[in-house]
Amino acid sequence: VKAERFPVSGRRIILRAKPNGLPKAEDFACETAAVSEPGTGQILVRVDWLSIDGFMAGRLKDQANYAPGVGIGQTMQAFGVGRVVLSGTEHFTVGDYVYGPFGMCEWALMEASPEVKKLDPSLGPPRLHLGMLGISGWTAYVGLFNVGVVRPGETVLVSAAAGGVGAVAGQLAQIGGARAVGIVGSEEKVALATSKFGYAAAISRHDSDFSNRLSAACPNGIDVYFDNTGGAIYDNILDRMNIHGRIVVCGRMANAALADSRQDIGPRDHNDILVKRLRKQGFIVTDYSSDFDRITRTLAALRAEGRLVLPEDIAEGLPNAPGALVRLLRGENLGKQLVRIGTET
Amino acid sequence: VKAERFPVSGRRIILRAKPNGLPKAEDFACETAAVSEPGTGQILVRVDWLSIDGFMAGRLKDQANYAPGVGIGQTMQAFGVGRVVLSGTEHFTVGDYVYGPFGMCEWALMEASPEVKKLDPSLGPPRLHLGMLGISGWTAYVGLFNVGVVRPGETVLVSAAAGGVGAVAGQLAQIGGARAVGIVGSEEKVALATSKFGYAAAISRHDSDFSNRLSAACPNGIDVYFDNTGGAIYDNILDRMNIHGRIVVCGRMANAALADSRQDIGPRDHNDILVKRLRKQGFIVTDYSSDFDRITRTLAALRAEGRLVLPEDIAEGLPNAPGALVRLLRGENLGKQLVRIGTET
Repeated sequence: VKAERFPVSGRRIILRAKPNGLPKAEDFACETAAVSEPGTGQILVRVDWLSIDGFMAGRLKDQANYAPGVGIGQTMQAFGVGRVVLSGTEHFTVGDYVYGPFGMCEWALMEASPEVKKLDPSLGPPRLHLGMLGISGWTAYVGLFNVGVVRPGETVLVSAAAGGVGAVAGQLAQIGGARAVGIVGSEEKVALATSKFGYAAAISRHDSDFSNRLSAACPNGIDVYFDNTGGAIYDNILDRMNIHGRIVVCGRMANAALADSRQDIGPRDHNDILVKRLRKQGFIVTDYSSDFDRITRTLAALRAEGRLVLPEDIAEGLPNAPGALVRLLRGENLGKQLVRIGTET
Repeated sequence: VKAERFPVSGRRIILRAKPNGLPKAEDFACETAAVSEPGTGQILVRVDWLSIDGFMAGRLKDQANYAPGVGIGQTMQAFGVGRVVLSGTEHFTVGDYVYGPFGMCEWALMEASPEVKKLDPSLGPPRLHLGMLGISGWTAYVGLFNVGVVRPGETVLVSAAAGGVGAVAGQLAQIGGARAVGIVGSEEKVALATSKFGYAAAISRHDSDFSNRLSAACPNGIDVYFDNTGGAIYDNILDRMNIHGRIVVCGRMANAALADSRQDIGPRDHNDILVKRLRKQGFIVTDYSSDFDRITRTLAALRAEGRLVLPEDIAEGLPNAPGALVRLLRGENLGKQLVRIGTET
């Protein structure tokens, strides 16, 4: 099957230098490269939207991670949604909306592997599959309910509460009958978290009275800490964890600037873990992929009922993708950070 | 019911001063006090044996713990076994063998609460209920199978592997089809762990080549780390944990000398917990008390088959109980540390 116009070249974002601390836009370059026609078993995707996520910082480091990193000169990794424009496989048809690890590029030549998923347009605009109906939504759901085992009446504390995952987590915790409290990076986000994301209370981590405000916001202690950041704030939270509490280790945004996470030094937590019988557990959302279809339908139904929202922070055009990542890692985004590549809404 | 001779006084060990660092024998005093006759609902117990356990260090600190601490002038806490000599309740008969939190004393006046348990003499000598058939055995069993969820073929690493809990844990891990590797405090204990406690390999934490020996002893990585010590050795172990590994936080012997466990400083472990999807969980064995009868029968059957042993390190006489605690916290004991109070075997 052939599309009407075949592009001979397209832009992509490559890694120019390993970041020293937090990545900067100058660590990346935008270059134009020829795009090949798909061979047998391959598809060519016109990328419409990219998702910008915290895990990307880890892919830029030399330290071992759960997935391979990005080498110098390679296309920066990213998940995206787009349309199939050429197909060398019966599994995809030209015009299909798809989601996959396309990387930061305008055109992606992909193997038709299980990593590339056909989207159901009836659930909403395709870009929702990068946020509320995709990684952000799945991560919030799995972290709260599969890993944290949140129960009605419990207090759930979420860090990075105004980010893509945190915004969904606050709403889902409340939908699950719990009381959600958020930690955010600015007073502007405090207002957003409490007015839009279902948080009963929110506190800026820069608040000079952080410790007392945290106590006031959690009068019954903390049953589940959904940790998107790590870092020094953890010690303060450990103090307030209830017996049999759960600490869900979802992200390490506070370490994004460190070359090696072992530079993040603090008191070892064994005493609190033991005395309070805490369970601290890390998770990678893709380990739960067999559950994604069910979770997606649940989230789409909540959205249709108007019970779940996720504001988007949109950067325009592929060349602005590195800047969007820098914004995210600095905590400057409000809601789900996306990059619009094409003209699709 | 009256015993033939009623003692008018008995010795007990009281706390004289809060320890500064590791407790010393001089922090305690042995005094003689009058013993009252039991009132209604009470029993008087002649204590035969005391158990010396790592958790006692925590009871001497000001820091919050899962159980109340010992105040100046109070009897030092300890579990023991003994015989009922006077009973003011129908639940106990003179001559019953009992287990309970009698404290460091020769005669214990106790309420007939669920904390005091009648022992089944058919299972073995009563003192076994302080070790293999008691807290040491229960802790090893619950930590491995309820919390660590050890499975056949996995590698289990145990710290303080020649202590009471560690000795049972090594044998039970092997009985459960896993491969047990021990960390101990001396070369003498290396030999004991591998010859007596079922460990496939053991390493002294003082070994100058510790890191390489640990790698060699765990060629397939570590699936479960049964941590009785905490402390700096943890960072080394974290490196070798396998994906989906479990860290069972059972004790903090390495912190026994610290006034506050927050003085135990090191890299925060969030990166490894996340990337490897580890589960780190603390437990207090008494939370599993509904399972103790079943576990005790299992352990007694293994003992009867000759598949489970636990050497005892015996201090003679109540005045030597503080010294036995000091020995334990210095790691100088070999096997289960007991104090013989009476003449019972």
